[in-house]
Amino acid sequence: MAGEQSASTFVDVPGESEELQRRHGAEVVGVTELGTTAEPTLPGVDQGSETTSEYTRAEVRIAYPVENVGVSVPHLRTTVAGNVFEMQPLSGVRLMDIDVPAAYGSECPTPQFGVEGTRELIGVHDRPIIGTIIKPSVGLSPDETASLVETLVEAGVDFIKDDELIADPPYSRFEDRVEAVMSVIDDHADETGKRVMYAFNVTGSVEEMRRRHDVVKEAGGTCVMVSLNSVGLVGVLALRQHSDLPIHGHRNGWGALSRCPQLGFEYTAYQKLWRLVGVDHLHVNGLRNKFTESDESVVASAQAVQRPIPGDDGILPVFSSGQWADQAHDTYAALGNVDLMYLAGGGIMGHPDGPAGGVDALKQGWEAAMADVPLAEYAEDHEALRRSMEAFGTDE
Amino acid sequence: MAGEQSASTFVDVPGESEELQRRHGAEVVGVTELGTTAEPTLPGVDQGSETTSEYTRAEVRIAYPVENVGVSVPHLRTTVAGNVFEMQPLSGVRLMDIDVPAAYGSECPTPQFGVEGTRELIGVHDRPIIGTIIKPSVGLSPDETASLVETLVEAGVDFIKDDELIADPPYSRFEDRVEAVMSVIDDHADETGKRVMYAFNVTGSVEEMRRRHDVVKEAGGTCVMVSLNSVGLVGVLALRQHSDLPIHGHRNGWGALSRCPQLGFEYTAYQKLWRLVGVDHLHVNGLRNKFTESDESVVASAQAVQRPIPGDDGILPVFSSGQWADQAHDTYAALGNVDLMYLAGGGIMGHPDGPAGGVDALKQGWEAAMADVPLAEYAEDHEALRRSMEAFGTDE
Repeated sequence: MAGEQSASTFVDVPGESEELQRRHGAEVVGVTELGTTAEPTLPGVDQGSETTSEYTRAEVRIAYPVENVGVSVPHLRTTVAGNVFEMQPLSGVRLMDIDVPAAYGSECPTPQFGVEGTRELIGVHDRPIIGTIIKPSVGLSPDETASLVETLVEAGVDFIKDDELIADPPYSRFEDRVEAVMSVIDDHADETGKRVMYAFNVTGSVEEMRRRHDVVKEAGGTCVMVSLNSVGLVGVLALRQHSDLPIHGHRNGWGALSRCPQLGFEYTAYQKLWRLVGVDHLHVNGLRNKFTESDESVVASAQAVQRPIPGDDGILPVFSSGQWADQAHDTYAALGNVDLMYLAGGGIMGHPDGPAGGVDALKQGWEAAMADVPLAEYAEDHEALRRSMEAFGTDE
Repeated sequence: MAGEQSASTFVDVPGESEELQRRHGAEVVGVTELGTTAEPTLPGVDQGSETTSEYTRAEVRIAYPVENVGVSVPHLRTTVAGNVFEMQPLSGVRLMDIDVPAAYGSECPTPQFGVEGTRELIGVHDRPIIGTIIKPSVGLSPDETASLVETLVEAGVDFIKDDELIADPPYSRFEDRVEAVMSVIDDHADETGKRVMYAFNVTGSVEEMRRRHDVVKEAGGTCVMVSLNSVGLVGVLALRQHSDLPIHGHRNGWGALSRCPQLGFEYTAYQKLWRLVGVDHLHVNGLRNKFTESDESVVASAQAVQRPIPGDDGILPVFSSGQWADQAHDTYAALGNVDLMYLAGGGIMGHPDGPAGGVDALKQGWEAAMADVPLAEYAEDHEALRRSMEAFGTDE
């Protein structure tokens, strides 16, 4: 891996081959064997004369000369996560983590708002940012969307996001949706002093994303959302270089890179690339989610998103999928802090007393978690939480 | 899948739910069962009450309303290849193909040069474009690179590319490399009338890619290369919108999306996304390659790249990895044409008579394939090919 992805030569080049190897060759700095398996994980493996009925797994640490890469996030990706996935001697390969030098922190744009900047814009401190997603995902007109937003802001949410499946379709033009939604958010802010953050999905070409960002900003909006894998590192970078708003990073498509346990990326590694191009909020799924990810993986992802890297001191992990008050205790126990977004769909809209009950129940669940009081006990004198447990508790 | 990725509602929305479903719901238009397996392919599967010891595989065709997506390649990706990979009821899911409506062909930028435009620039018709890759991948100074280019153009190659591992490092600044390389290519063109195409790796931010494109163009260069997965769809689109040169698409990182057979993408689907943002040449690996991909998959990929889609009539598949004259017959038999790039590293540099022998041998191998004469027979009166078979034939 170190050779293939750096200065390994298969032909003689006139002159300084050894010098070149010394300066530009990547170095294996550690190998921790993790046992053997009888079967190769993935097809295509060929270990040549070393063919065996046993395949050794190992954690390998490789150091690349920064001089090979320079400070370039896309080129970093090619170097550490390029052809390596298809190397014949490996029956599987997964990028577990990346450490970047301090120069990446000072030269990359990095997140502009992060935890504190986002909290400041919403005006919520000392608890998770409670949010939700517009559903149905597609099909609502701008006015229908705004009407749903009205219900949600009145229910007390801090944050709302477009579903990733809506961007700029003919039936809900981006500009029209922003105008309709921001009118509701403005009115609510005028009445209550609270400006709910709405993440508008700007996913599109560079010009489209930048223009849509400007539309949001001019309308008084406070967040833009982008589908990271659809746009790519350089697209997000171009948005960030132009942006005056927090960038909400949606990771749809992530499953293709991660679901096979011995291939692709661990989120610990992957999320760093997006922070280095300036994303402020990163989706991490949620405990007991409706997708295929294990709780262990969700926790590791969220912890990684909160951990400092060159350029930022940790950003906001976004929990969603099947979330309600139920997961507050375990989420809090895993992170030891409340610097996160906690998004619920059914947990808010499906509450027996309506969305306001749903939002209250979520807040009460988190109060219980932070006070270290069992949910059932806290529910005794917290009506919304109690009703929420009656409605959703049977899922357990 | 159709519901999750379109208008499926898990809560009642006031008013026209049925109308919304009718207009915006994706439709399953075909299911072909492919047998059952006893084990789930990937972890995380939960089929609820239908839990069974048997998992059914099927090819499923889903039609999405174009109104949900509009004409947007990144948003198309979110719609057809977003959260679907992590759906609990599926023990594996792979995007096999995508059909896009004609509007994508007329509204997307699409490839600017393709097969004929590239052939025109190089001046090679009626046979494959024979090329090679600068090695070692990293570490050569601009002058050392230029010196190697001199050897290669004198050997008779049509095309040379930067390795994907070099972009703009401190020891070989992009501008300096272009200047040094183009000086050699210019001199060769002046002497012989043949302008060899060099694909300079412009991978970087939008501004960097566009500026580097201009540097190449102003120096008389005829191609730019980009690491597709590192840059992303929107980055490539931004380059294409600015570009006056063919875009050579390198797919490093592709293994992470494809090597698990029941996850991610089939290249048949994936390559279309890149053509819709304007890539002219797409890597497809090669027969009997040094990576993990099967010959069957390589052939399917190359055929897909040559097949028309809205916006282009097929572009150039780029064969590389362990290629020499040996694979010419089988490659020609699989495609039935010579509209391809055929890149060899060791097959050129490692030829016993030097690079000129290597290039001659490749050309002779393709002459034999096109004339339907067995390689060994053609080698009888073609020295370079014969020597090449003596040197590399033992690999078989």
